[in-house]
Amino acid sequence: MDKNHQMWADLGMDLKTHDLLCEALPGAYGDVFLTQENRPECMDYFEMVAADIHGIRAAELVEAQKQGRKVIGTFCVFVPDEAVVAADAIVTGLCGGSQFWVPEGEKYLPANTCPLIKASMGARFGKTCPYFRIADMLVGETTCDGKIKAYEILSEDIDVHVMDLPHQKRPQDFIAWENEIKLFMEKMEDFTGNKITLEKLNESIKLINAKRRALARLYDCRKNKVVPISGTDTLLIMQIAFFDDPARLTAQVNRLCDELEKRIADGVSVAKEGAPRILITGTPLAVPNWKLHNIIESSGGIVVCEENCTGTRYFSHEVKEDNATMDEAVKALSDRYLGNINCACFTPNPGRIDDILRLAKEYDVDGIIDCNLKFCNLYATENYFVERAIKEAGIPILTLETDYTDSDAEQLRTRVGAFLEMLGN
Amino acid sequence: MDKNHQMWADLGMDLKTHDLLCEALPGAYGDVFLTQENRPECMDYFEMVAADIHGIRAAELVEAQKQGRKVIGTFCVFVPDEAVVAADAIVTGLCGGSQFWVPEGEKYLPANTCPLIKASMGARFGKTCPYFRIADMLVGETTCDGKIKAYEILSEDIDVHVMDLPHQKRPQDFIAWENEIKLFMEKMEDFTGNKITLEKLNESIKLINAKRRALARLYDCRKNKVVPISGTDTLLIMQIAFFDDPARLTAQVNRLCDELEKRIADGVSVAKEGAPRILITGTPLAVPNWKLHNIIESSGGIVVCEENCTGTRYFSHEVKEDNATMDEAVKALSDRYLGNINCACFTPNPGRIDDILRLAKEYDVDGIIDCNLKFCNLYATENYFVERAIKEAGIPILTLETDYTDSDAEQLRTRVGAFLEMLGN
Repeated sequence: MDKNHQMWADLGMDLKTHDLLCEALPGAYGDVFLTQENRPECMDYFEMVAADIHGIRAAELVEAQKQGRKVIGTFCVFVPDEAVVAADAIVTGLCGGSQFWVPEGEKYLPANTCPLIKASMGARFGKTCPYFRIADMLVGETTCDGKIKAYEILSEDIDVHVMDLPHQKRPQDFIAWENEIKLFMEKMEDFTGNKITLEKLNESIKLINAKRRALARLYDCRKNKVVPISGTDTLLIMQIAFFDDPARLTAQVNRLCDELEKRIADGVSVAKEGAPRILITGTPLAVPNWKLHNIIESSGGIVVCEENCTGTRYFSHEVKEDNATMDEAVKALSDRYLGNINCACFTPNPGRIDDILRLAKEYDVDGIIDCNLKFCNLYATENYFVERAIKEAGIPILTLETDYTDSDAEQLRTRVGAFLEMLGN
Repeated sequence: MDKNHQMWADLGMDLKTHDLLCEALPGAYGDVFLTQENRPECMDYFEMVAADIHGIRAAELVEAQKQGRKVIGTFCVFVPDEAVVAADAIVTGLCGGSQFWVPEGEKYLPANTCPLIKASMGARFGKTCPYFRIADMLVGETTCDGKIKAYEILSEDIDVHVMDLPHQKRPQDFIAWENEIKLFMEKMEDFTGNKITLEKLNESIKLINAKRRALARLYDCRKNKVVPISGTDTLLIMQIAFFDDPARLTAQVNRLCDELEKRIADGVSVAKEGAPRILITGTPLAVPNWKLHNIIESSGGIVVCEENCTGTRYFSHEVKEDNATMDEAVKALSDRYLGNINCACFTPNPGRIDDILRLAKEYDVDGIIDCNLKFCNLYATENYFVERAIKEAGIPILTLETDYTDSDAEQLRTRVGAFLEMLGN
């Protein structure tokens, strides 16, 4: 048995079923990524992580656990990584992005649930994802109906802490969210046995802000007329950012950005002349969900920005640093997380429309695709406002709904192709 | 033009389309209600209301508005009627229960939205429900994804106040809910121009408690071995309770209960000997959604209790009366509404399981049907716990999912028939 298989066996995984996933991924990965031309050399790091996606990082986490550190699994950009890091624990994102896990999830959840939630549940209960096995504790949030109920089922199997996210952004909601962050920090202290000091919290804010700055720098490179990196490669980096070590990820993204900025100076673009520049908005694209990016970019378009949770919502806006008191630091976290993430779970959510229109300008896009996971009622309903505002701004928009199956790939390809062709004229 | 049509025209309704609904309802009503044998005489009042469901009460509300009173439309049992009544305004429930309104609602909402929300939106935007035209203001709540986003769309058309319902029941959530009730009361004061005094609030608590007691008395009659009223008739009464004048409704329900208690003493049952006694649990059954009750009771069963929002969740538990201060009164409201209504929007929601098992015993049921509206992810997911707990208690359970169309009626009839037959053995 090789090292990975030994680790997976030790984690109590279903090796036989997991092998099927391991066998399918390289082909899928190759089709999407290795067919791209002229990729940045500094994708080498991300290539390596992706090639052994259930191995390298998982082994690091297992090793950290042996040294007494806790691993905390999260599902949402509202959960502040800073609180986990300040307790000397490690965050790992757990959202599932493959159809592989969906049937197992449907044993526990209604079929009419969004594929991300079904896949996440399936990955845990099917014992086919090492990160779900490694996580000592899960952190949920009350963002949507599907998740709040799924967490109840998960909590029968593993310790789950749920953060009660307000659904409005009034002054009292910010205070409520500060209190939720404090409760979460207490939970982290209890669970890890480590005290969260002001110094540690300020340090962790700086650590995560540095990661945010690196990702923002990466996105800034895409604003240029010369597009030095594909949307597909950027998406992979974002997906890895959710579970990689934050300091190393920051360094690697900055190393890549050095190359990308040189590419811009040298006029090296991955996009063909005149390729329509696309902004994607909507629901998150969890690893390994690369379907939409692949369709767009293999149909002649170039994705230059993602206004979603695996895009700008993840890194935009920094947390205020060097806070003088614990209360000030917690308020800084509340302000950044509640104040600046414009998820469709808010009522109303005009900030998202503002974000989309601003990003469309900043990234000089030719068209917008509002793409939402099937059965995500929040985003599907918010499309009513999103589509109208985009049309009013005179920007072409295509609305899509999809899941993790391949059954609609050809239909999506046809619709996206027609949209890109229209933009090309 | 008759009086009703004149009123509907004055309300800006779409008369032609509304006439189609008016033409269809009597037949549907007759098929469901008038085919029943041995109905209580005191159903006469509810018969009259139902026969002119868009006429009599609507005319009263229009008249009240002429005298300066405001009419407040609500969609959920969490919105405290007491706050509206104490401001001398009138509450009218607005949930739509007919497929007639669904296609219009789908112009605004994703098809994958629960039919109750689609019907409610369709009734408003299609101008085919007088109550939606009469309502001066709507009150929403953050209970589920579908509703919070639908309220945003409605709020472009009419003033909507949204109450932020917590999704847990911790001490801080009760305080948050008290604050929401206070905000709602302030909104009612501003909107009506009437001050909510402690005296008025205490009075309104008594008024609504009296209605709760009457409905509880009605339900108590169904606990008996002799079942003096059908579930179908009880459902109609509950549906009328959401929009009728509370004092009159209370009087009429009590008048009916006098008859029902005499029936019990006299051994007059509407159910055949040995008819399986059914508890329905799940999502609300808004007027005129009588499908499930009709199928059960025309297939030989008798519905003796509904653990849902148009059943026990609406009237169970009274609000503490004779409060000495405004804060005490608001706390009493928060305790009753947040503390005692066990909706699947809470995470976790063990109180509902307790309620179901307790009611099953109190109403001596033979079987339970967990029936949920399609695309209600909260209740569909909670079925995981509900079905398991009921099975563990040794009670037969049937889980159904349905919408407002008739397309599944035969399939439901077959499944319900098989379930009842199994219970009969």
